[in-house]
This record gives sequence, structure tokens and C-alpha cells, in this order.
Amino acid sequence: MAVIENAKLTIVGAGAVGAATAYASLIRGAARHVVLHDIDAARVEAEALDLAHGSLFTGSSTVTGSADVDATADSHVVVVTAGAPQRPGQTRLELIDTNARIFRTMMPRLVEASPGAVFVIVTNPCDVLTLLAQQQTGLPAERLFASGTVLDTSRLRWRLAERAGVAASSVHAHIVGEHGDTEFPLWSSATIGPVPLLEWDPLDRDPFTPDELDEIAQDVRTAAYRIIAGKGATNYAIGLSATRIVEAVLRDERAVLPVSTVLSDFRGLPEVALSVPSIVGSSGAFPIRETRFSDEEHALLHASAEAIRETADRVRDAA
Amino acid sequence: MAVIENAKLTIVGAGAVGAATAYASLIRGAARHVVLHDIDAARVEAEALDLAHGSLFTGSSTVTGSADVDATADSHVVVVTAGAPQRPGQTRLELIDTNARIFRTMMPRLVEASPGAVFVIVTNPCDVLTLLAQQQTGLPAERLFASGTVLDTSRLRWRLAERAGVAASSVHAHIVGEHGDTEFPLWSSATIGPVPLLEWDPLDRDPFTPDELDEIAQDVRTAAYRIIAGKGATNYAIGLSATRIVEAVLRDERAVLPVSTVLSDFRGLPEVALSVPSIVGSSGAFPIRETRFSDEEHALLHASAEAIRETADRVRDAA
Amino acid sequence: MAVIENAKLTIVGAGAVGAATAYASLIRGAARHVVLHDIDAARVEAEALDLAHGSLFTGSSTVTGSADVDATADSHVVVVTAGAPQRPGQTRLELIDTNARIFRTMMPRLVEASPGAVFVIVTNPCDVLTLLAQQQTGLPAERLFASGTVLDTSRLRWRLAERAGVAASSVHAHIVGEHGDTEFPLWSSATIGPVPLLEWDPLDRDPFTPDELDEIAQDVRTAAYRIIAGKGATNYAIGLSATRIVEAVLRDERAVLPVSTVLSDFRGLPEVALSVPSIVGSSGAFPIRETRFSDEEHALLHASAEAIRETADRVRDAA
Amino acid sequence: MAVIENAKLTIVGAGAVGAATAYASLIRGAARHVVLHDIDAARVEAEALDLAHGSLFTGSSTVTGSADVDATADSHVVVVTAGAPQRPGQTRLELIDTNARIFRTMMPRLVEASPGAVFVIVTNPCDVLTLLAQQQTGLPAERLFASGTVLDTSRLRWRLAERAGVAASSVHAHIVGEHGDTEFPLWSSATIGPVPLLEWDPLDRDPFTPDELDEIAQDVRTAAYRIIAGKGATNYAIGLSATRIVEAVLRDERAVLPVSTVLSDFRGLPEVALSVPSIVGSSGAFPIRETRFSDEEHALLHASAEAIRETADRVRDAA
Repeated sequence: MAVIENAKLTIVGAGAVGAATAYASLIRGAARHVVLHDIDAARVEAEALDLAHGSLFTGSSTVTGSADVDATADSHVVVVTAGAPQRPGQTRLELIDTNARIFRTMMPRLVEASPGAVFVIVTNPCDVLTLLAQQQTGLPAERLFASGTVLDTSRLRWRLAERAGVAASSVHAHIVGEHGDTEFPLWSSATIGPVPLLEWDPLDRDPFTPDELDEIAQDVRTAAYRIIAGKGATNYAIGLSATRIVEAVLRDERAVLPVSTVLSDFRGLPEVALSVPSIVGSSGAFPIRETRFSDEEHALLHASAEAIRETADRVRDAA
Repeated sequence: MAVIENAKLTIVGAGAVGAATAYASLIRGAARHVVLHDIDAARVEAEALDLAHGSLFTGSSTVTGSADVDATADSHVVVVTAGAPQRPGQTRLELIDTNARIFRTMMPRLVEASPGAVFVIVTNPCDVLTLLAQQQTGLPAERLFASGTVLDTSRLRWRLAERAGVAASSVHAHIVGEHGDTEFPLWSSATIGPVPLLEWDPLDRDPFTPDELDEIAQDVRTAAYRIIAGKGATNYAIGLSATRIVEAVLRDERAVLPVSTVLSDFRGLPEVALSVPSIVGSSGAFPIRETRFSDEEHALLHASAEAIRETADRVRDAA
Repeated sequence: MAVIENAKLTIVGAGAVGAATAYASLIRGAARHVVLHDIDAARVEAEALDLAHGSLFTGSSTVTGSADVDATADSHVVVVTAGAPQRPGQTRLELIDTNARIFRTMMPRLVEASPGAVFVIVTNPCDVLTLLAQQQTGLPAERLFASGTVLDTSRLRWRLAERAGVAASSVHAHIVGEHGDTEFPLWSSATIGPVPLLEWDPLDRDPFTPDELDEIAQDVRTAAYRIIAGKGATNYAIGLSATRIVEAVLRDERAVLPVSTVLSDFRGLPEVALSVPSIVGSSGAFPIRETRFSDEEHALLHASAEAIRETADRVRDAA
Repeated sequence: MAVIENAKLTIVGAGAVGAATAYASLIRGAARHVVLHDIDAARVEAEALDLAHGSLFTGSSTVTGSADVDATADSHVVVVTAGAPQRPGQTRLELIDTNARIFRTMMPRLVEASPGAVFVIVTNPCDVLTLLAQQQTGLPAERLFASGTVLDTSRLRWRLAERAGVAASSVHAHIVGEHGDTEFPLWSSATIGPVPLLEWDPLDRDPFTPDELDEIAQDVRTAAYRIIAGKGATNYAIGLSATRIVEAVLRDERAVLPVSTVLSDFRGLPEVALSVPSIVGSSGAFPIRETRFSDEEHALLHASAEAIRETADRVRDAA
């Protein structure tokens, strides 16, 4: 008898990011079954109980919390948020030694439990961890990728939308590269509706200037630092970003999102994981090779790739 | 005491299009109060009753049906679908004499009942009727516009998305001009994600060719005829298109949608209503003047404007 | 590689009810894949095209139309709306001879194409057709049931809610029995919030009287006739009712809904299909045996069962 | 010109509960404008920024954070979560001295800024704070009420649903009284679908026993303590509970929810605020006077009221 196989989402890590991802996923009905997994049994069970207590208001999804990796078995998507959090003043890359060590033990177990899943790495530095995890597990590149600059792109589009006086959904722009200090916007292809960003010139406001765009890009790049200074962590927007990726996978949307996959044969880049616009569906994430880069953007992309590679090399040497 | 003023949507015309618009609006929760208005009291009350009977499943919106224009008073948005329907074999423009006559009587009454509303004309030929109604009522151009090529654009994006293997939401393209035989796509600014349409070249499918794009444009242009041949009318997609416009207005989204407003001082066009990408929010619809047109697209736009003007002139002469 | 098996919904019959069910299912995202199937190829393809053209506004679901039963293969839920429609003045039971004949040919083909599906019969008279189809196909009773009085119950709750001044979701009441002239409300267990209906006595309105409740029950029972008189058919509320049942199945909600299953060993009733509160999930529909009936309600239930059995016997004799 | 007045929601307190309420409200589109207000400017601005960064994924709502009470002006609903949090081992009532002091300063300012708003108190002990705030501000009782046992009721329905194998939405039961140690379920009117809870007897599981129900009630009563022990606070389910109340108000749903209002002339109770099933809409919350209580439940209600009154008296004496 054929019973519909309902989607199972595992979220690894019951910290602020993992719990926010679970909350957003439950409210949006992104998956029928949500498993929150963490080695801290008391915490993960408490988070899952708090989430379950709201389920009257969120429809038919279930949520369970477990410290046992077996509870994650046969997931369709696994979102990994576990790791040491970013501290005030700390760069994303400084987190790496601790988190790389955690991943080396954790990822093989998660892949063994859900060998067919799509894995989405949210833990920072997400690009380096994705590269290391993909090499370690041998999963196809499309099935293990990072949330990358999906969040940064959301920040950018919100800022541009506020400034231009249009809906964020009508602003088409992407942040690419490292999810970190070397990321940058693809201004050369950014548009508002059908209008190139630099030609946007409504009657009721000033057009954008290159200086202003530089400043916006810088604001986006440093947004996490400002939020961490104010509240100690970022969790809500990244929770929604991860949920959005999960939806694209589980619904096989083939939506264009700037996730970070391990690239091969991409514009002469070394083998690193970084974000470029990619097609995300039930088979995973596929970078769009035809993405246009201006000469300047091309140079920035290579610089960003180098930054990621250097960190990855350093970690491998330390291991 | 301040009680929130909940949104009131009037839909004029209880035919297949009006009823589908009401159904979609109720299911999506687009407005708190939906009034269906039609001169046929028996029909409008039956439609409203059928819609109300589903309200257990659609949340807190109410729906009422009335042949009395007073029931529409103080609406925030008025969607006009009333008029003679398009017959198989008939062009949209041939409908005009009948519908222009209906509008001359109906529009002043609707404006009197809801003087502050945003009016969305769906009745065909929607561009000509919008021009006549705006001139007759003297409403500001931004507050009386047609659904125009919002539907045609949705058809185009769906076709391109199916062919390219990406989500329709990641296809950025617009049909502009007359909602009718002279409409055309703005290929010069169309993209998939950040990639210009003609550069789209994934590993797993063929790129688009100019001939194929011509064929797709022609398919979109004639889609209504094919649907009318098969089922006698089109109603479901236009119902969702109208609902989408209503949402952009009521939520003050400032979303970019190709609605049809009466243009003034727009690229040397005569005073006609036609669709170009516009910003739609609670104040109404504002055409985006910076929209890029290639030389060929510029010529097509003028030709489309001429077609609309000729019809409008013919109707005015007949009146 | 594990790709999530997304839900497939087939709707049989591209008339007003089938199309409204497809429209509501697409707007609500009830299933990832919707197939509309009808023997009239031109019509079903036109309806599906009209529905697909709105998909930009409804998310990631797909819709296709086909006259080929193979297109329905391996559906998870099959909603059957095909059949001759109810005419003004005609009772539901008078439709039966034609529709029973259609079902005898159609149902085995649909079951062969989707042997594991849950089948939801919407075509009228739905109780008799469910009984005949279940006996013919030999499917377990829980996997072939009728939408029954889900619609009538929605009508009742809407009426009571309007009258009592509360949300319909806070009115707990069921219509049971035949989806037709012998149906009746279970007043003995009806409540508003926690308050028995007959004890409801707010400061700002009159309490209900038994006479008024009789009148409301009669209004609900005859609502379809009034709508058919005004617009020629009912389709919108039944489309939402069918969609709600589909959601309960595909999400494995185990929601309590008054669907119509073939009963066995239920309060001494003959083997008929009729509606009682049932638990609806991915395995199908299971009548709640503990449902309370007052003596009068018990008698009405038996009378309703007899009406269905007589018709079923008459049809079997005629076959 | 009539522009629709979009709903404005203020959430006071940018701690874990306030931020979760804002997150849930944004994801669900509960209000068009969300203002997060807290005296800690750095924190509230960081929370609002984090929330705003996800707005690409949540539609057209805006969110701003401010330490200035003027930013809350003319809200339609004000949800108050500000106050000292409950510590592990601490009872809800022990929080009171601190929070009563905060309220005495804060509430008049909030009421002055939004004199027409509906106020929803979430800060604990919410019943006592509601009583004190209503007496201090002189607002009509229906416009200043506590979230009360809406959360506890959600916990109860989830537990009963899991155990009975039905959807939580099909379990009709209420926790009433103090949001705290003296709360209790109204077992006498609890049902699953139409079946009284104690008569529920499906083939595939055991019926409930009185002992089991006692245990479930005790689990619900102590759930917050368990969650606080595991994660230090509760925030997600209360965030959804508060959001649900906001929706009922802003959409004028008149939904039945067990919120806590200051009662007068209610079953001989002293003037306290406690939760009973109430009708919640745009005018506020109105207790349902006809709610049935068994003799035992009546006694428990009085005991719960006494517990609240004693605490309120103690606070007034200390002030």
C-alpha cells in the first residue's frame, strides 16, 4: 500500500541558529517531520518540547529532539548548524579549527544515517567546512553545499529595496564569493525590475551612486558584526535563509539561490567552495556557469577563492 | 476607540473571471472583506453563497454578493471584470463597443461609491477601457489601471521556466504593450537568475534560439484563443493575476508588475493606456520610465500604442 | 539516491467542480503535482493550461491535463468529480443511473493506474457511488470514501458562526448521514467553544431556539438547490472541501472530518456508505465508532441509511 | 485619498519571547508593520536588524526596532513581553515585585502612545500584572488582557492529540485559571471531534483513564519548568501563542481562546484576571459566561482566583 513519503528534515545543532531554523520550518510547513539533533540531550529535548508546544498553531508537522544520531536516519535534507558560535570581535575564519574538528567526527555519522540526503552546511566558516566535508565524505558536490551568501543576498536586497522604494522581491541582485569578509555584490548584473541598478532614476528619489553602492556592500559585509555586538549572535535571518533552501530542495523548485558548492572547472578557480548563483532542487545545487562577471568582479571572485583556499590549507596542515 | 480598518475588496462582475478572482482572493486571504457586485442579483447572490460556504477552510475573510452598488461603498480596491465576454474567434478589440457602453454607465457609480479606491480594470479590451474610464472619471492615472499584461507575463515566465528547467520565480522577463495581439516580450532585458536569456546555456539542455523565442512569444500572444477554443473562456489565471495586483495594493508592496496605466510623456508615446513595468502599491501604479527598450522593442511599443489609440478613437467617434 | 517523492494528486473530471478543486489545490499548495484527467481532451488541456498560467503566483506545484488514464499513474490521492452534473430541480439521487454506469467503466481503470491511492468520490450521489465503487473494486473501505457531508458541515458551521458572532473554527458541529435530503446535524454534541449550542447565551444576542435550529438545518440541506437555481451549479465550496480532504490525507493529519465510508458493524446500520465523523490521514478514513447519537439522531441515521440503501438496490437491479 | 490603514503591531521587550513573537508574526504575515521596543537600544536595534534581514523570505511586512516609545505610536495591538525572566526553580509568582514595578512606569506610557490599541500582556505573572495594569490604566477590561492559558491549552491539546492519534485541531479542550501552578483543564467539556474525552475508545489504542488525565494535566502544568531546566527559558511556543492572539484581534476573528481578562460578576469570583474561554476580536476579549464547570472545576476555579488575588494583594501592600 502506497503511503505518501512525507519529507523529513534534520537540523543538527540546537543552538540559536538551529532552533530558529526549526521554528521557521515549522511555521512555514517546510517539512512534515523535523528532527532537532544535538549532543546535549537536555537542551535538544527542551528545545523540541518548546517547539512542539506551538504545533497547534502551525499545522500538521511534527518535531522531535534527540541526542541519538539514529533519530536522523533517512532524512531528505540535513541542515548542519552545530559548532562553536562566532564571538564578538572574532572573524568567521577564526572559528575554523574547532569546527573542522567537530565536523570530522560528525559528518560521516550523519551521512551514514541519511546516505541519500541533501546536506546544507550553515556552521561557519561555512565555505571551508563545506570543502573539507565534501572531500572527507566523497558526496557529490551538488549534495553537500553551504547556505553561503543566501543570507548576505537577502540583506543586500532588503537594503536596496528600502532605498529604492520597491519590494525586495523586485530587486534582483546577488552577493557572491566567500560568506565572509571577501564577499561582494555582482553590481554588473543587478537590476530593479528590468532596470539596471545604476540606471534606476525615479522621480521621487535620487539615483544610486557608485560610492553609495560601495557603502551598501560594506554594510552588508559587516552586518553580522553589528548584530553580534548588539545581541551576541545572529539567528533569525539565517534561520529563514536555511528554511528557504530546504523548501527549494524538498519542493524540487530549481530556484536560483547563491549557495556555496565545491566548484570544479569554474572560471579557472581553484577547487574551493564558494557562493555563485546556483539552481537548487531535489537533486541538490548546481552552480550557473554562464553567470556574467565584469573584469573587476572576476578578480574579486579569484581573491575570495584564494582567501578560502588559504584557510582550508591551513586547517588541513593543522589536522 | 481604534479598531483596525480591515481591507475591503469589491469585485464587479460575477461571471467566471469575477468569481475566480473572489475565490483566489478568499483562499489567499488577500482582503478581509470581499464584495461581489453584479446587476444579476440571483447570480451574484448564488456565487457569493457558494464562496461563503467554503469560508471554514479559508480563514477569517467574509464574502457577500449584492446587486446594489451601495454594497461596494468605501472599498479600498475595486476590480472590474463586468462586461461581455470574449467569444471564440473574436478578437479582444471587437468586444469594445458593448463594453465601452457598459463602462460609461457603471464607472461613475463605482467611483462615487468608493472615491478613494484603487480601480483595477480586467474587462477586455482592458487598455482601451482604462483609457476611456480614466478620461471619463478624471481619476489620477495611478489609481485606475488595467491588469494589462500581468497575465501574459505569467504565461511567458511559466513557458520559459519549463523550458529552462528553473523555477518561474527565477525567470525575470516582461510582456509589455497592449494586452492583445500587438503585445511583445522585452527580450533585451530578460534574464534567468542573473544570466541574460540568450546566454543561458546549461549542460543538460540546449540554449534558446531567436526562432524559438519568437515561437514562445507567439504562443503566449495566442494562448487565450487556444484556451477559449477548449473551454469557452479563460478565468483561473486571470483570477490569480488580479488577486496578485490586489495584494500588491493592499499590502503597499511597491512590487514591479506590468500593469496598464494611462501614460503621459512616456518615450514619445501618444496618450494611451498600455502595460510597462510599473511599481504597484497602496497609492496605485507608477510606470517605470527608465525601463530599457532596444530599438526594435521601441518600435514595437509605438506600434502597440497606435493599435490601442486607433480603437479608442473609433469608439469615441461611435459614442 | 533518495529524492523526496512529492505528492501526486489526480482530479478526474474537468468540469466546474474538478477545475475548482484543482485551482484551490494549486493555490494552497496541497500537492506538488496535480493531474487533471477527463475524456474530453480539448477541454482538459485547456483547463490545465489556464491553471498552469497562474502558477507564477502559486509556488512550485505543477499541473497537467490529459485524456489518457496513464497520466494518472501512481497518484497518492485520486479525487473523482466526473459524471453528469445535477440539474436545477433534480435531486441528487436522480443522477444515479448515468453516473453509476460511468463509474463501472472508469473506477477499475483508475484503481489499476494507482493501486495504492486513496480515492475520494465527489460525484453525486456520492454515497451510493462510493458503496457501488467499493464493492466493485474491492478496495479497503478506508481507501475509497466520499467527500460526503464535509461541505454541508462547512455550510452549517458558517451559518451558526454568523448567527452566534464567533469564528467558524470555534463552532464544533457536524452534519451526518446522506449527502442529500436525509442529512441532519448532530445537535446533541454541537458546541460553540466549550458551550453546548443550546446553552449559548451571550449578552449581545438572543440564544438559539429549537425552531431556529430546525430552520438552519433545513437551509443547509437545501443550500445546493438555491445555488444551482442562481448560478446553475455549485463548485467553489465543494472544491475547497475536496482540497481540505486531500490535505488531511497527504499530510497524514488524522483530522476529524465527516466523510462517507462504507460502514460495517456500525450501530446496527445496513452496509451503506454514509457520513459520520471520521479520522482522515494517509491510510484513509476511519469512522469514529464512539460518536454519540441521541435517540432521535439514531433514528434519523437509520432513516438516512435506508434511503441510500434503497437507491443502491434500485441501481443494482437496473444494472 | 483613501489608503488602506495597515495593521501596526508593537512588541515590547526584545528578549527571547519578544523576538520570537516578532519572528513568528513576520513569518505568518500577522501584521503589516512590526515595531520591537525595548529600553536597551543596542539590543533592540540588533534584533530588528536580524529580523529585517530575513524579510526577503517573509513578504511585505516591515520591522523596526527602537528604544523610543514614540515609535510605538498608534499601534493597533501592543504585546508586552518586557520584564525580568523566570529563573530555574523560581515560580511565576515570585517574579512579581520586579515586574509590577516595571509595569507601573511602562504601561501608562504605552497607553498614552496607543490609546486605542488592544494590549496583550505576556510578561509573567501575567494574570496579576494584567489585574494591576487594568486597574492602573483604567482601560476597559476587554482591551487589556493576558495571553493566559493559550499556551498551556496548546500544550494540552498537543499531548492529547499525540496520545489519541488525531490532529491537535480536532482535540477540543481548555486549560483555565491562573497561568501557573493552580491552572487546570476543563475535562468535563473536553472532546475529541464530537466524542467526550473519557468516551474516546478507538480500536487501536487504550482509552484514557482518570489517572492518566491527572498525569497529563500535571505535565502541562510543569512543562515550563522542564523546558527552563533544559534551555534556560521558554520562548518559541509562547511566541506563536501571542502571534495567534494578535491575528485574532487584527482580523477580527472572534475566535474562542482562553485569554485572561479582569472578570467582573463571573460565577461569584473576586475581581481577578484569569483565563476562561473568551471571544477574541478587534474590540478585545470577552469571557464566555456560559462556560460549563463541573462542581470540582468550579471549586478549582475559585482556588485559582484566590491564589491570584493573594499575590495581587501582597504586591499592592508592598507598593
